[in-house]
Amino acid sequence: MSSELTTTTTVISAKDATNNSQSLTNKDDLIATSFRLHTGRTSKLDVWSTFHIGNFPEDCIDLALGSMNFCPPQWVRDSANDALGTVSANHYAHPKGRIRLRNAIKAFYDPFFSRSLDVETEILVTSGVTEGMYSVYTAFLNPGDEVIMFEPFFDQYVPGTTFNGGTPVFVPLHPPPGGKTHNSSEWTVDIDELRRAVTPRSKMIIVNTPNNPVGKVFSYEELHAISLIAKEFNLLVLADEVYDCMVYAPKEHIRIATLPGMWERTLTTVSAGKMFAATGWRVGWLIGPKSLIGPTLAATTRIVFSTNSPLQEAVAYGLENAPKINYFPAQLKEYEERRNVFTEALDRIGLPYCFPEGAYFVLVDISKLKIPEDYNFPDMLNGRARDFKACWFISFEIGVNSLPISEFYCEEHSGIGENYARFCFAKDLDTLRRAAERLAKLADYQM
Amino acid sequence: MSSELTTTTTVISAKDATNNSQSLTNKDDLIATSFRLHTGRTSKLDVWSTFHIGNFPEDCIDLALGSMNFCPPQWVRDSANDALGTVSANHYAHPKGRIRLRNAIKAFYDPFFSRSLDVETEILVTSGVTEGMYSVYTAFLNPGDEVIMFEPFFDQYVPGTTFNGGTPVFVPLHPPPGGKTHNSSEWTVDIDELRRAVTPRSKMIIVNTPNNPVGKVFSYEELHAISLIAKEFNLLVLADEVYDCMVYAPKEHIRIATLPGMWERTLTTVSAGKMFAATGWRVGWLIGPKSLIGPTLAATTRIVFSTNSPLQEAVAYGLENAPKINYFPAQLKEYEERRNVFTEALDRIGLPYCFPEGAYFVLVDISKLKIPEDYNFPDMLNGRARDFKACWFISFEIGVNSLPISEFYCEEHSGIGENYARFCFAKDLDTLRRAAERLAKLADYQM
Repeated sequence: MSSELTTTTTVISAKDATNNSQSLTNKDDLIATSFRLHTGRTSKLDVWSTFHIGNFPEDCIDLALGSMNFCPPQWVRDSANDALGTVSANHYAHPKGRIRLRNAIKAFYDPFFSRSLDVETEILVTSGVTEGMYSVYTAFLNPGDEVIMFEPFFDQYVPGTTFNGGTPVFVPLHPPPGGKTHNSSEWTVDIDELRRAVTPRSKMIIVNTPNNPVGKVFSYEELHAISLIAKEFNLLVLADEVYDCMVYAPKEHIRIATLPGMWERTLTTVSAGKMFAATGWRVGWLIGPKSLIGPTLAATTRIVFSTNSPLQEAVAYGLENAPKINYFPAQLKEYEERRNVFTEALDRIGLPYCFPEGAYFVLVDISKLKIPEDYNFPDMLNGRARDFKACWFISFEIGVNSLPISEFYCEEHSGIGENYARFCFAKDLDTLRRAAERLAKLADYQM
Repeated sequence: MSSELTTTTTVISAKDATNNSQSLTNKDDLIATSFRLHTGRTSKLDVWSTFHIGNFPEDCIDLALGSMNFCPPQWVRDSANDALGTVSANHYAHPKGRIRLRNAIKAFYDPFFSRSLDVETEILVTSGVTEGMYSVYTAFLNPGDEVIMFEPFFDQYVPGTTFNGGTPVFVPLHPPPGGKTHNSSEWTVDIDELRRAVTPRSKMIIVNTPNNPVGKVFSYEELHAISLIAKEFNLLVLADEVYDCMVYAPKEHIRIATLPGMWERTLTTVSAGKMFAATGWRVGWLIGPKSLIGPTLAATTRIVFSTNSPLQEAVAYGLENAPKINYFPAQLKEYEERRNVFTEALDRIGLPYCFPEGAYFVLVDISKLKIPEDYNFPDMLNGRARDFKACWFISFEIGVNSLPISEFYCEEHSGIGENYARFCFAKDLDTLRRAAERLAKLADYQM
């Protein structure tokens, strides 16, 4: 991996830049190389962009990208407009975040962490969670430090790690046998396998619960076992809990930072984009001890300086007022209904899937789909796993866009993922019903 | 420098994090160490924070931080609110930037670059210019690569470089003899000195015009001489032109990317925050050839994923409509009046200064100020240059906050800067007049 990192940051010398078209090809290769890091294999930018950013035909229903097809609540948007009417909310925020937002985060999260958070030293607003996690890697990784992550992993973890000199180490979640519908809790952690992944270079472990893309919500027992390893081997824990407000009863969200002895070694990430259906606002935050927030602040100050001010104010207003109107429980109920509408449709079609206990994705098992072998796939899919071809086929022939899951694994483990496609149900019910109608056509392609 | 980088990214092992209060002190030291990178000497976070983020007494008039004390234009803010009313402008933007903004940038900048910019490959929207420049360092610097920058430099250049493994190399601008008012063009580049700074490890040169903090607008002859060196030694040029809309007649803004043979090796940064008085919106962009934009896109996609959507839409609307209402010439006239009100007040007081031809800062020459030696300075100023003490004194005794300029130099050259304090005149006229009244009291302290 470290040799790949070197390749990634290889210039592009100005000499190359001023040369002929051959050097332009080199630049394209460099881009591809950068993206190669995130799957461990050559991945063309256009493939990545197609699947992640929804460049499919316009009449496709896009359930690939993990964002909503509805607006943030009107009352939160109104407060953004109010903020735009003030001088200070149009200008630089403090690199720590605007104080009103930090106070609102404190009031909202104190009960969940069972402590009185210090707004000066234990909360850091970031320009989305991607930037927050990138700042953590920048603050804490030395060259060769290893970052343990569970597969399937959110695709930004790998380049974030390698761009900062770290080496990703992969521990797969194990799904139940394929071909039938199951619960996300059936994807299990093998704690001995996790223990074997620890080396003297291990620095950090990323724990993503609820998990994207599986929807697994880690149990207390699982988190406790992970916490024992983190303490035994002295690991920093990066708790990616961006879907913390989307855990469906009877499952409960457990914060690993609240387990015994874990506060001092854990940074927890939260996403306002997920909480308020505003993924394009780019506001998130980190919660953790002063010893970990301090260096991360030093990094984020140099990476982005600060996060946009007016939308921080709106998020503060959102956090201040959400409890008064029961906003989060009501939103959770809506997501639960979306999940059920989509999964009940899959039941009717007879397509097996993973029933998620958290987040807003459904993994559909495509292992029994018979994709025509003579289908005219584009060259860029040559050599990709079967899920890439299945997703392509479903997009172009069925009209629903989804994300291939082998993309969320390292090359060695990609076989685990190639039976699944991720569908995002953070959409209005009508869209989900229309997608289900289209997916019914897959009945013609089942083995 | 490379050893300092190692120090900066040193963890903070989880072991330290879970230990006693002594390890907390270590964390504080790490923060200080991170900030040490930006001046080349130990700089406490609280000193930095105090001077940069305006933590002075509330009754102080803050002319330190480089942001406006007025709102963006109402019509631009209204368009932000319109964007908040649409679904797509509340969700993830494409990592390249929203297409409407990229189209608006193309239409606005095509004439300035005398070319038809390709919105897919030659324009990249970033989360402010700090993040854009950070992505350039990430994309292009290998460990030990040298980045040449003129002093005084914008303070983010150094940590941006070192956090990505690069080594800053400093070439000072030379001011005229101190003690009398002069024009910013009298700060000169010694081209032979620049040539001597080039080594086989030189990778990049940062050219900031109009310059922060001097206000110098580089002449065609200066940029041409720099361009010859960039071409001779095959350097990538990072053109920081965030104040491009604040160049006062008869001076003209020259873009180094437009000089012969320079397009292919130049990335130009622009700031919507400066153009529309919206420093807290965190929207900027890079313009350059596909060969340089491509790798920078790969980096920015992993650092922030994308830039906030609603304010991108508002900036697009701003660029589309500004020419129709003569917005930029009118704004420039307002800044020119602000500059003149402030500098005429300095003339009346008899305080020498540097008359800026661009940007919105005035360097005031504090070399002849007699600061009481027995003044009760805080411990954190021990060992700092005289400008730190002068700025502190002016804040607490005169009631106007400014920025010490030795902060913008490496340690070796800090003597050049210690005669100056930077005052930002991006404020309404009433504020500037009140500040001038207060500064008149400095007459009592002149030698």
